[in-house]
Amino acid sequence: MSDSDRLARVALAATVEPGRHQLLTLTSDLGAEHMYAQLLEEPDFGARLAEADPVRLLSEGARAGLRFVTPADDEWPRQLDDLSRAGTLQERGGTPLGLWVRGPLRLDALEGSVAVVGSRSATTYGADAAADIAEGVARAGRVVVSGAAFGIDQAAHRGTLVGDGATVAVLACGADRVYPEAHRRLVEHIAAEGAVISETVPGGAPMRFRFLSRNRIIAALTVGTVVVEAAVRSGALNTANWAGRLNRHLMGVPGPRTSAASEGVHQLVRSGAASLVTGPEDVLEVVAAAGEHLTEPPRGPERPRDRLDHRHQQVLDAVPLATGAPAVSIARTAGLGLQEVRAALTRLAGAGLVEPNGPGWRLAAPAHEPGAAPFLE
Amino acid sequence: MSDSDRLARVALAATVEPGRHQLLTLTSDLGAEHMYAQLLEEPDFGARLAEADPVRLLSEGARAGLRFVTPADDEWPRQLDDLSRAGTLQERGGTPLGLWVRGPLRLDALEGSVAVVGSRSATTYGADAAADIAEGVARAGRVVVSGAAFGIDQAAHRGTLVGDGATVAVLACGADRVYPEAHRRLVEHIAAEGAVISETVPGGAPMRFRFLSRNRIIAALTVGTVVVEAAVRSGALNTANWAGRLNRHLMGVPGPRTSAASEGVHQLVRSGAASLVTGPEDVLEVVAAAGEHLTEPPRGPERPRDRLDHRHQQVLDAVPLATGAPAVSIARTAGLGLQEVRAALTRLAGAGLVEPNGPGWRLAAPAHEPGAAPFLE
Repeated sequence: MSDSDRLARVALAATVEPGRHQLLTLTSDLGAEHMYAQLLEEPDFGARLAEADPVRLLSEGARAGLRFVTPADDEWPRQLDDLSRAGTLQERGGTPLGLWVRGPLRLDALEGSVAVVGSRSATTYGADAAADIAEGVARAGRVVVSGAAFGIDQAAHRGTLVGDGATVAVLACGADRVYPEAHRRLVEHIAAEGAVISETVPGGAPMRFRFLSRNRIIAALTVGTVVVEAAVRSGALNTANWAGRLNRHLMGVPGPRTSAASEGVHQLVRSGAASLVTGPEDVLEVVAAAGEHLTEPPRGPERPRDRLDHRHQQVLDAVPLATGAPAVSIARTAGLGLQEVRAALTRLAGAGLVEPNGPGWRLAAPAHEPGAAPFLE
Repeated sequence: MSDSDRLARVALAATVEPGRHQLLTLTSDLGAEHMYAQLLEEPDFGARLAEADPVRLLSEGARAGLRFVTPADDEWPRQLDDLSRAGTLQERGGTPLGLWVRGPLRLDALEGSVAVVGSRSATTYGADAAADIAEGVARAGRVVVSGAAFGIDQAAHRGTLVGDGATVAVLACGADRVYPEAHRRLVEHIAAEGAVISETVPGGAPMRFRFLSRNRIIAALTVGTVVVEAAVRSGALNTANWAGRLNRHLMGVPGPRTSAASEGVHQLVRSGAASLVTGPEDVLEVVAAAGEHLTEPPRGPERPRDRLDHRHQQVLDAVPLATGAPAVSIARTAGLGLQEVRAALTRLAGAGLVEPNGPGWRLAAPAHEPGAAPFLE
């Protein structure tokens, strides 16, 4: 594609709000130059489009460290094209005309990336979970994408930086701006090491529908979205919806069952929309290609019983828990000979697994948990 | 069926360990009297069977308040017959020959009952969850079944009693005994108001394989099993496996993501074996017949934005979050006329939703959460 394609995209993107699905779909189908020429003819809109000066926008953007990445560029993240087939949510949708990018990370490095998103009003439990998951995902070489908002987003970016990983912030305002202002240092850090991305024109302010449009970019850039905490009306659920719509993996982190901050996540898991993940290993297993990154199912510590041969296990199974039974009764229950059982009981007692009680033997209570049933948990 | 069927069952149940799948299946197929006659011929085993005195066992049981319920009785819980087609787990399986029962509750009242089980070494979080769920399930008129063990089981029984509901304890030892001894008052309370049940001969001691056999009874008696907390090798997972094997509903309560006590539950949910439940309403919805007990999905509190008409929402959506924009720019973004937008902005300001800023208007920050984006969560 040509320079004029790029210029047409810059001009259109400066004039049209993000996520105008119909216009974006038409542009994907007909080409940006065609679209530009056609819209110039529209009353009202044509005048505003004509006022847009794409050459100046690009050079001003470059001075602010911004580049405009379009589908014609090598670094264009191809996964965004899925948006052209994903319909709309809350009247937003479509493949963006281009992305304004600030930072050294090439966008094609976002292949296999993972989004970690959640509530602005996160609990410390949620923030810890987001940071831990982001750090582990980053250490496995995957880029972590989030929205630089308060709460979970912030924790995810910070966790990634702790893990010396690459992180990308997708903003609802222009990529040259910072919102919220309290995150200026964080966002500058991300721009210095990863990338700050926006579909909104440079200088553009954060507005509600720009957040809704932004969420679809986060979901589309990544192979999976982890929702860490979300109340039932959290904006993170909009991102989750997009992930589902785009056939991306959707994952949810459980929280305390009565935590309002986890209620939206529990709903996602309960409905089957999201799979449950408790840490980075789970996330890596879910987003891995088939057969990769299988986690070892946790097995718990080995118990003394595991080290016994089958015969000794049979004897042990026949020893009562509470009140001692004589060897002859244990032998009968186990279906084994008395001599053999006597010998086994002596060895089991030596291993601290059975103990004398009354006229016979009973299971020895584990020292750490008096009264509990040994070998049962 | 005849008295001799009952006597044969009592004698067999007193001689054979619980959950001997092959023998139980043969008994279901051939009848107890035939089985009794055949086994009398076996060397060793025949002698032990001949020693069993079922008439004495029944009269001694009756003196201890026990009855022996068999498939010939009206109160026999028919759902137990599913065990004859459910195979084995850990070498145990099959429909029990009969159940020794202590308590006023008829076993056919267990139709629609729910099991609440979990770790012996429960946390207070888990115990609270078990009690809350059991209480809510009981208040809805369902019997709560558990195993009278330490931890989750105990909390489930107590929660049911708090809810003035009926609860059943299925024991691994004889129904005339108590294990653990610390639960004597609890078990006596259950026997006085609900029922204490065991497949094990009266006087029988708690032993490992009797626990494994007992778990299948808990799963089979109920329409669904709720696992509240379970470490990765918890005995509660054996009950969970049985619930799955028997096509019963399996449910898991989430816990803090790093809690070892919840690890086994999280695995069940993650693998899709169990559905996530956070309270009694969720449990009732899962176990209800189709269309019954649908819970209202939580919707969160209404926001001021919800009460606006479409036109005012359009204007509000075009107002920036951080730095004020003049009405003319807001009108352009919203695609509405300037007069109309000016009037709307005045009304929105009156409602506290926008505020003057610099040369124009911005969204008013909610008083309770300074700096957060309004209307986004």
